[in-house]
Amino acid sequence: MISLTVDLGPRSYPILIGSGLLTRRGLLDPWLRKRDVLVVTNETLAPVYLEPVLGLLAGSRTGSVILPDGEAHKTLATAGYILDALVEQRFGRDAVLLSLGGGVVGDIGGFAAAIYQRGIDFLQVPTTLLAQVDSSVGGKTGVNHPAGKNLIGAFHQPLCVLSDTDTLQTLPERELRAGLAEVVKYGLIADAELFGWLEHQADALLRREPAALHHVIRRSCEIKAAVVAEDEREKGRRALLNLGHTFGHAIEHCAGYGNWLHGEAVAAGMCMAAEFSRRLGWLDQGEVRRIRSLLSRLGLPVDPPATDPVDFHHAMAMDKKVIAGQIRLVLLREVGEADVVSDYPAGLLAEQLGTQLRAG
Amino acid sequence: MISLTVDLGPRSYPILIGSGLLTRRGLLDPWLRKRDVLVVTNETLAPVYLEPVLGLLAGSRTGSVILPDGEAHKTLATAGYILDALVEQRFGRDAVLLSLGGGVVGDIGGFAAAIYQRGIDFLQVPTTLLAQVDSSVGGKTGVNHPAGKNLIGAFHQPLCVLSDTDTLQTLPERELRAGLAEVVKYGLIADAELFGWLEHQADALLRREPAALHHVIRRSCEIKAAVVAEDEREKGRRALLNLGHTFGHAIEHCAGYGNWLHGEAVAAGMCMAAEFSRRLGWLDQGEVRRIRSLLSRLGLPVDPPATDPVDFHHAMAMDKKVIAGQIRLVLLREVGEADVVSDYPAGLLAEQLGTQLRAG
Repeated sequence: MISLTVDLGPRSYPILIGSGLLTRRGLLDPWLRKRDVLVVTNETLAPVYLEPVLGLLAGSRTGSVILPDGEAHKTLATAGYILDALVEQRFGRDAVLLSLGGGVVGDIGGFAAAIYQRGIDFLQVPTTLLAQVDSSVGGKTGVNHPAGKNLIGAFHQPLCVLSDTDTLQTLPERELRAGLAEVVKYGLIADAELFGWLEHQADALLRREPAALHHVIRRSCEIKAAVVAEDEREKGRRALLNLGHTFGHAIEHCAGYGNWLHGEAVAAGMCMAAEFSRRLGWLDQGEVRRIRSLLSRLGLPVDPPATDPVDFHHAMAMDKKVIAGQIRLVLLREVGEADVVSDYPAGLLAEQLGTQLRAG
Repeated sequence: MISLTVDLGPRSYPILIGSGLLTRRGLLDPWLRKRDVLVVTNETLAPVYLEPVLGLLAGSRTGSVILPDGEAHKTLATAGYILDALVEQRFGRDAVLLSLGGGVVGDIGGFAAAIYQRGIDFLQVPTTLLAQVDSSVGGKTGVNHPAGKNLIGAFHQPLCVLSDTDTLQTLPERELRAGLAEVVKYGLIADAELFGWLEHQADALLRREPAALHHVIRRSCEIKAAVVAEDEREKGRRALLNLGHTFGHAIEHCAGYGNWLHGEAVAAGMCMAAEFSRRLGWLDQGEVRRIRSLLSRLGLPVDPPATDPVDFHHAMAMDKKVIAGQIRLVLLREVGEADVVSDYPAGLLAEQLGTQLRAG
């Protein structure tokens, strides 16, 4: 097991990464200290993981909430359902909420923890690659609004993130690939060496070789922890983590939530960002091709679906990255270096959307 | 106009108190800087104050949400309605929410601001005495759950609190009195001199003499600002501000939200806390009588309604001040000094509830 720290002063916390962690009794005791725990998970994961996790919580009074699976249920109403469970079980301000699952469960559970009694403690136990490399770390919690992803939410840091890498062995293929999109993102924004490593080790990752998975989880968490420590509330540098996400959120929105996985939309979104970077003269065609090629080898989509460009632009503008009406975009200077831009020529974006979306 | 500061480091903010502030164009400019503003108010206040407030916001794009009046509407669903308005009007992360009204509007509006796009800025423009002396200051925001008051919420500090004391001249009599309950609370927990002053000036306050109102708003805000600065998240001393509130929340709950005003319930709740303090041997009968006498002169209830003691105790236990199952109570050492207690004999509380509630 390795332990990384997200350094946020009084809100610092560890990310524990390793094999077999869900069977290590006592591992969570330092954070739980026998307090009441509500486990939030979904109907797909509960049959597999609920029992081992309740085993980890011996000594606590426990309850569980089992949500329907999928992004379509990441709503304020579902968060309300978790709050009802906390109230019904008479859990107090010192109770702990444990999110067991992927990004959706982590985001909703964390949000419910953020607003129950003005904030109770919570633990993240991510079981998908996407959640282990990205969404469980950094304290972003929230739910979707019909008009856009994560429009409702809070910053609420967990007490601890516990990533048992064994859970990835049974992850559906499509979800494994979606998680790899976020790993590629870390390479693109901050670590050209990681990007190169992925180009060589793509097959090992798709074969789920434990050493390869362990390497990308560790490196992704190191990069994310460093960025979050520097800019917890996304006033500046943290925005780089949104590479591909403004395009990606628009893809998810226009395709209908749940039809594209988040990681798939981010993959195609990163290709759109790379293409726009090229149109601005930042990247050359070879680099764009290299990015598309890696994502393709990882089984990820590299083009958006056919969509009305006006609807798509509207959906992009609904994303949170809009400051005073201008859509902020994360673009690439080169592989390994990104920048946030909002002073690009608007016509250039419209032109790209017109070409790519009709062809998509 | 006077200006007090709530000293919270980077989240510090001023409380502006004075006459005619709602007509002073430009007063809010330093906080707004022409950003978009959504005004949240209710159907009672909108006809009187919405126009002057929109006048203060000249230079900003504005929208407004008019809620039904009353505590019964302080729900997650109402907060969702405000979020819908923010989305529909395409307000971004840099927009500002302005709560114009009493405690209910301030709490819901602040909560919506706390969770829209993981937190946007907000301004408090309280128009009731209760909001001016208490709820607008300190960053507690939230909504009720059917099982208990303020069970859902967030800490979210405003950018500025603007209290125009002229609004109190048209406040319904009952609401003025309810606000005075919180002023008495400040005297009881922290300032015996203020309590004595209230005993002498009760009539001036009920006649709404501007100098008397100005004095109690200022002194109340000074006390609250000092307590909040010391303990923003209620880990310790801030809990003293809940004197009368655990009993009071149970009264509100058992009587049905909206039948008792919050301040009325707090008044009777403070008398219950005083009586329990006497039963523990902290206060003598003369002090209990003095407290009841002042609250009575201010036209406030000093006894709880007739209720089943078991239901009442259950409602008290649902209050957020429960730590690991034991109900924490704020009790009085003397007039001007309070303490948080959870190691009292449980039988003594049951005995008091049995006597007081059946007689109520």
